[in-house]
Amino acid sequence: METSASKRESAFFFECPLPLRDYPTVTLGHGSGGRLSADLVEHLFLPAFDNAALRARGDGAVISIADMRLAISTDSFVVRPLFFPGGNIGELAVNGTVNDLAMCGAVPLHLSASFILEEGFELAQLNAIAHAMGEAAARAGVSIVTGDTKVVEKGHGDGVFINTTGIGVIPAGVHLAAERVRTGDVVLLSGTIGDHGMAIMSVREGLAFEAPIQSDTAPLHTLVQALLHLNAEAVHLMRDPTRGGVAAALNEIAQQARVGIVLDERAIPVRPAVSAACEMLGLDPLYVANEGKLIAIVAREHAEAMLAALRAHPLGEAAAIIGEVTDQHPGLVAMRTRIGATRVVPMPQGELLPRIC
Amino acid sequence: METSASKRESAFFFECPLPLRDYPTVTLGHGSGGRLSADLVEHLFLPAFDNAALRARGDGAVISIADMRLAISTDSFVVRPLFFPGGNIGELAVNGTVNDLAMCGAVPLHLSASFILEEGFELAQLNAIAHAMGEAAARAGVSIVTGDTKVVEKGHGDGVFINTTGIGVIPAGVHLAAERVRTGDVVLLSGTIGDHGMAIMSVREGLAFEAPIQSDTAPLHTLVQALLHLNAEAVHLMRDPTRGGVAAALNEIAQQARVGIVLDERAIPVRPAVSAACEMLGLDPLYVANEGKLIAIVAREHAEAMLAALRAHPLGEAAAIIGEVTDQHPGLVAMRTRIGATRVVPMPQGELLPRIC
Repeated sequence: METSASKRESAFFFECPLPLRDYPTVTLGHGSGGRLSADLVEHLFLPAFDNAALRARGDGAVISIADMRLAISTDSFVVRPLFFPGGNIGELAVNGTVNDLAMCGAVPLHLSASFILEEGFELAQLNAIAHAMGEAAARAGVSIVTGDTKVVEKGHGDGVFINTTGIGVIPAGVHLAAERVRTGDVVLLSGTIGDHGMAIMSVREGLAFEAPIQSDTAPLHTLVQALLHLNAEAVHLMRDPTRGGVAAALNEIAQQARVGIVLDERAIPVRPAVSAACEMLGLDPLYVANEGKLIAIVAREHAEAMLAALRAHPLGEAAAIIGEVTDQHPGLVAMRTRIGATRVVPMPQGELLPRIC
Repeated sequence: METSASKRESAFFFECPLPLRDYPTVTLGHGSGGRLSADLVEHLFLPAFDNAALRARGDGAVISIADMRLAISTDSFVVRPLFFPGGNIGELAVNGTVNDLAMCGAVPLHLSASFILEEGFELAQLNAIAHAMGEAAARAGVSIVTGDTKVVEKGHGDGVFINTTGIGVIPAGVHLAAERVRTGDVVLLSGTIGDHGMAIMSVREGLAFEAPIQSDTAPLHTLVQALLHLNAEAVHLMRDPTRGGVAAALNEIAQQARVGIVLDERAIPVRPAVSAACEMLGLDPLYVANEGKLIAIVAREHAEAMLAALRAHPLGEAAAIIGEVTDQHPGLVAMRTRIGATRVVPMPQGELLPRIC
């Protein structure tokens, strides 16, 4: 016992708080968007890169240059399979970064695209992916202005990995931040949950439904603009619930804003096919990734108007008020269940759905 | 014959000019920075993403937001080994993007960092890499403001791949562009060539020298500022000769500016150890990657002053005038050799040194 403990100690030439010491090597859970991902950011990357923009830990960073506020966001995409019902890795890579910029309140403008290709990958597939990216960029009103391509030997990559990084401008009057969230605020969700994750999982697991589950991948910038145009001041924070699902996104908000959140299970929209697939695989839709949904924390007095604005948008037809911010249990997310009980919705710990984006 | 030809045709559901049709799948050469990389950009990515900023094909893109000119550049790093004499993948990832911004004439400001980790990679190594990135960022005066981490299963990646994307501001009066290159301009090189590539190769090939060859990885933004402060107008174009070396960088310039370039072999500085290692491995240092060198195309009447400015900088002590721009043989690079002959220096075709950055 003692030998193995001291051996593990010596492998760690860095000082780290307890959470990381439990894992001397990278696990799939470190890419989950849940607790282990957060540990990696908090205990490894933040100390190494320390600066104020990074510490704010939004979906992107907000920086000021001259008198402009810009949002910058980056994401690498490793989804498997590359093509899935409702989309492909290229479309996902564009929409994902567009959405992270939109969650900062920014109007997305420009993207970079960087490819890590595996030797032997078909150029025809790469071309299809590149065209899907071009089309997604056109739909989102952004241009892909610069790029890079690297190739690794067969067996050292996996077909194609794509990084997109984007910048956008945050209009005056828009200020989304965890510290703006307050007791009594309302939690809006723009539509059904779990569609993206279960589209991927049903392909991987060979689940057959009458109509296949489609990914919800979509650019959310116009949905965001609809809310901000209504009343920018009343929108306090936005997140898109991707990896780790609604549960991870709301736990992050609760922790960063130091508030409690209470959800109403009956109010959370889930498609029957997604619900069925989740049941078959033993998954909770609250933890399943979305790629075309947003959560907005808004001032109570404007919540109904905001809900109406979401529902008037093609991407927000199934929008709902799913909960509220409370001064009880700060840092925790709770849920009133269908049967009237209340349970905690914890931050996801491990990794149930690897390589979902 | 006919069957296999038609089979190959049908696999290509995209229209592409001849060069790409020779390769139905990705080869290591597509990541070389040479002819095949250029084909991929020209015949696959440009048609898919088409826009003016991308067509300019600099080391980064130049975009305008309000009345500001910003440079954006992205690079993914897949270098092997991760730690090498003179640096590591983290330091390289920061310096590489800082340098691409600097080559646009920009003052680098902010970086994003995105990691694709392989399951089982040691967190202690990741920590060392992250700290090297933090230190490199501090040296270059940039902050790493946002990031992302993905994890792929063991055997589907290779330890760690890093993407960095950066933005910087281009000061008024700085205008670096291929169309500004003209006959009579002088080609400056900031120091010895081939150090980075041969540092990597000598580790991989187990070559032993009295003193190991060190990578030249370094941030070039202050060297660039030294030239621009002297006379921004007189600096017409800059490139850092990374993948594909000085040969690829100058061929790109000759093609984009539609000019000829003539080099003087005797003027090109190469360290004896690099020269010896190249000879052992049958490589030409002109084609070997550098990570801390720049090429500047400057107006002839300012060339001597610019050379002096480079030499006064710690990163430019071995700077030299290595050639000139001519109206002969537009699109081609030629070299007057040590023995007085003239030979063409072609664009590299395949891939001699995979995963050098």
